[in-house]
Amino acid sequence: MREAPAGPDPEHDEDEHLGEDYALTAAFVEKVIDAADAGDGERLRDLLEDLHPADIADLMGFLTSEHRSVLVLWLSPHVLAEVLPELDDSIREQVLERLPSGALAEALQELDSDDAAAVVEEMEDDQRRAVLAAMPEQDRAAIESSLGYEEDTAGRLMQREVMAAPEFWSVGDTIDHLRAQGEDLPELFFDIYVVDPQYRPVGGVAVSRLLRSAREVKLSALMEPVNEIEVHQDQEEVAYIFEKYHLISAPVVDVGGRLVGQITVDDIVNIIQEENREDILRLAGVSDEGRDASVMGVVRSRIPWLIINLGTAVAASLVIGAFAEEIEALVALAILMPIVASIGGNAGVQAMTVAVRSLAARELSAANAVRIVRREVVVGFLNGAAIAVLLAAIAAVWFGMPMLSLVIGLAVTINLVAAALAGALIPMILERLDRDPAVASPVFVTWITDTVGFFTFLGLAGLILL
Amino acid sequence: MREAPAGPDPEHDEDEHLGEDYALTAAFVEKVIDAADAGDGERLRDLLEDLHPADIADLMGFLTSEHRSVLVLWLSPHVLAEVLPELDDSIREQVLERLPSGALAEALQELDSDDAAAVVEEMEDDQRRAVLAAMPEQDRAAIESSLGYEEDTAGRLMQREVMAAPEFWSVGDTIDHLRAQGEDLPELFFDIYVVDPQYRPVGGVAVSRLLRSAREVKLSALMEPVNEIEVHQDQEEVAYIFEKYHLISAPVVDVGGRLVGQITVDDIVNIIQEENREDILRLAGVSDEGRDASVMGVVRSRIPWLIINLGTAVAASLVIGAFAEEIEALVALAILMPIVASIGGNAGVQAMTVAVRSLAARELSAANAVRIVRREVVVGFLNGAAIAVLLAAIAAVWFGMPMLSLVIGLAVTINLVAAALAGALIPMILERLDRDPAVASPVFVTWITDTVGFFTFLGLAGLILL
Repeated sequence: MREAPAGPDPEHDEDEHLGEDYALTAAFVEKVIDAADAGDGERLRDLLEDLHPADIADLMGFLTSEHRSVLVLWLSPHVLAEVLPELDDSIREQVLERLPSGALAEALQELDSDDAAAVVEEMEDDQRRAVLAAMPEQDRAAIESSLGYEEDTAGRLMQREVMAAPEFWSVGDTIDHLRAQGEDLPELFFDIYVVDPQYRPVGGVAVSRLLRSAREVKLSALMEPVNEIEVHQDQEEVAYIFEKYHLISAPVVDVGGRLVGQITVDDIVNIIQEENREDILRLAGVSDEGRDASVMGVVRSRIPWLIINLGTAVAASLVIGAFAEEIEALVALAILMPIVASIGGNAGVQAMTVAVRSLAARELSAANAVRIVRREVVVGFLNGAAIAVLLAAIAAVWFGMPMLSLVIGLAVTINLVAAALAGALIPMILERLDRDPAVASPVFVTWITDTVGFFTFLGLAGLILL
Repeated sequence: MREAPAGPDPEHDEDEHLGEDYALTAAFVEKVIDAADAGDGERLRDLLEDLHPADIADLMGFLTSEHRSVLVLWLSPHVLAEVLPELDDSIREQVLERLPSGALAEALQELDSDDAAAVVEEMEDDQRRAVLAAMPEQDRAAIESSLGYEEDTAGRLMQREVMAAPEFWSVGDTIDHLRAQGEDLPELFFDIYVVDPQYRPVGGVAVSRLLRSAREVKLSALMEPVNEIEVHQDQEEVAYIFEKYHLISAPVVDVGGRLVGQITVDDIVNIIQEENREDILRLAGVSDEGRDASVMGVVRSRIPWLIINLGTAVAASLVIGAFAEEIEALVALAILMPIVASIGGNAGVQAMTVAVRSLAARELSAANAVRIVRREVVVGFLNGAAIAVLLAAIAAVWFGMPMLSLVIGLAVTINLVAAALAGALIPMILERLDRDPAVASPVFVTWITDTVGFFTFLGLAGLILL
């Protein structure tokens, strides 16, 4: 624990709000909480003064909702505007509820249209109407048009502010235009899109390229092909295109092919992280609960999978029930059977995770599916044989029954081949059925490995041993 | 399966190499394989002509190593240069082995220093020496200096080409300089770094900002604070900074604070994906095997975890062994006990995955650890109680023994609380010990839930039932 300074000392605070790992320090969060508890607005303002909006959003995540409400009152509309898009969904919802429509309308005007729309989207209907009504016509139209596109599409993601120029312009024309216009342009841009008379993109010029070219050079001589994004494309697909082709920005076109906006890579980084988070949580049977979820929120996010798991576990136990006589005859079977199921489950999860990830990265497709499944089965057999030898030896030492060792060795080998097949095929089948392989695969895979594990071990024991 | 056209038809091929999901189509991959098998170089060249380097790299991933060797011979040095940095590590290694040093030296000169270094790093010592010797002095020095930094640090990641300008320059001076210089500048850049006389960054000007400002404006009036990256910083930390502050590029400084290069967001996107892939695979107990791993490569990547799992499964079975008498007395115990362990394992993995992800996103720290653990325990108890009721009912229907239902209900509740504690605490403890929580957490968590599950269920049965 770091020692807190004796008294308020803003100079010092500024240096210490971030730890070595660029996360907020516990000591700093503590100070903010103390100031909020004391209702000391001056001190709060001092503490927050030099924080980046992303750090303020981060700080909010570490506070309770009561402390958050105090904090929000001390943010200027300008800072608030930049903090809002950074907040986690659940926290943003809370914060929005407590802010008057006027202040919100003012704050949102400072944002690019995509960020403003992302905030408005989270509001309750009443508040949304009030906030939109309090905004200037042009800003309101931009937000409404953005909300007109479906969630998770390029249309939602794009900003409408974009820099376009006709082919016949020279570098000089473009620079003069940029210097004269100013206001309507995006705050930052990285490419200038060259458009034909129908406003369809025909190429792009990187800003740094424009800068180093002579004034008289025509844009048509500088431009390179661009990857057009269509407004209705899914954001996951957009992220894949950005990642694959290393894009910094891309033009968005409507169904008629006309330029209507642009998407920049900083939004894509967020999407990639969001998709990855979803995948990792789904594989564990958790829906995204957010860092600030209430106890009941967390319960709701996790219990569906537990109930499904209860179903598959009971189904697997029915298999055991069918062999009650064998277990009564030889209690060693009950002692060893969970080992067969457990290793099968782990091997299945390994194969399944590799398949789910390869599908997501588009590294696994019809073009190599057969090769991959064949490899998995061979690996399952080899790993199964290796584990079988070890496990048979352990069982021999433990129970001293050679035939029992043989049975458990055979069972574990068969179960690891089943695990390989299930782990590789189930995600591929779900993908083919247009389901998310990350959601349902784990249930099926462990159900199969449990069932096959119990059935082969107890069944072989019945045949060979008893 | 899409129908292949009757004969070679490059016009048509171009349109169809990508499917709706922007992945290469199986039909296109098939055609490339046929052409490679037939040794038809003309046809191969036609097929590859309009492919983006990233798509060629992708294609390589779908081919066997024999086909790859044929393909590589038909790529021009220019295309080869752009394909090399895109390849998976294992494939790049293979390809590099088969290329003469002269061709490689020529290809690498076309790349930015960071990409060239990333390729050279993969070479065998002999080849590396030969390739570097065949390169011009300046390029060689850049690559050698890059390789002088440790792997996975900012120094490795940065490109040395960077655009710096003194504070007293105006917009006009800067543009004139850019137009005059050309060659030594990075191919693309997004920020111009303003440096003091010691070449230490004092701010940055976005290129689009420069472009729209009047010629006479001083850079010192336009510049904004920059996030400096230190050459020795870990790439994961760099990615976190880029993501948090939505950076497009950032200056890299040496220990003396002098500007030595820059990192751009396109490299960061790769790092983020790499780290995410590692996390997701580690949680499943797989080390990164690469899409092209041999059977033995895959076996090696998976068997360590299976052997560890064998150890923990045997340890858990020792607990069962201690209750052999109870099982002999009542075989229903053997039938039901895997359910208690299985649900505990799933609940533990849920809590653990949420904790691992929150730690990675720096959303879980000393500042909120106590609150998070407390919430997990309450959730574990509530979910445990809910599952207990269901499971007790199922057991009652199945075996008709009220006390057995009571025992299994109690056991599952206790195990879900244990799962919550283990799932939340183990990753936090590993993180505190500077270990990767994604690697070892799953072993510990399922070992605890198996052990607690068997022990409480069989132990309570012994106490209450028998």
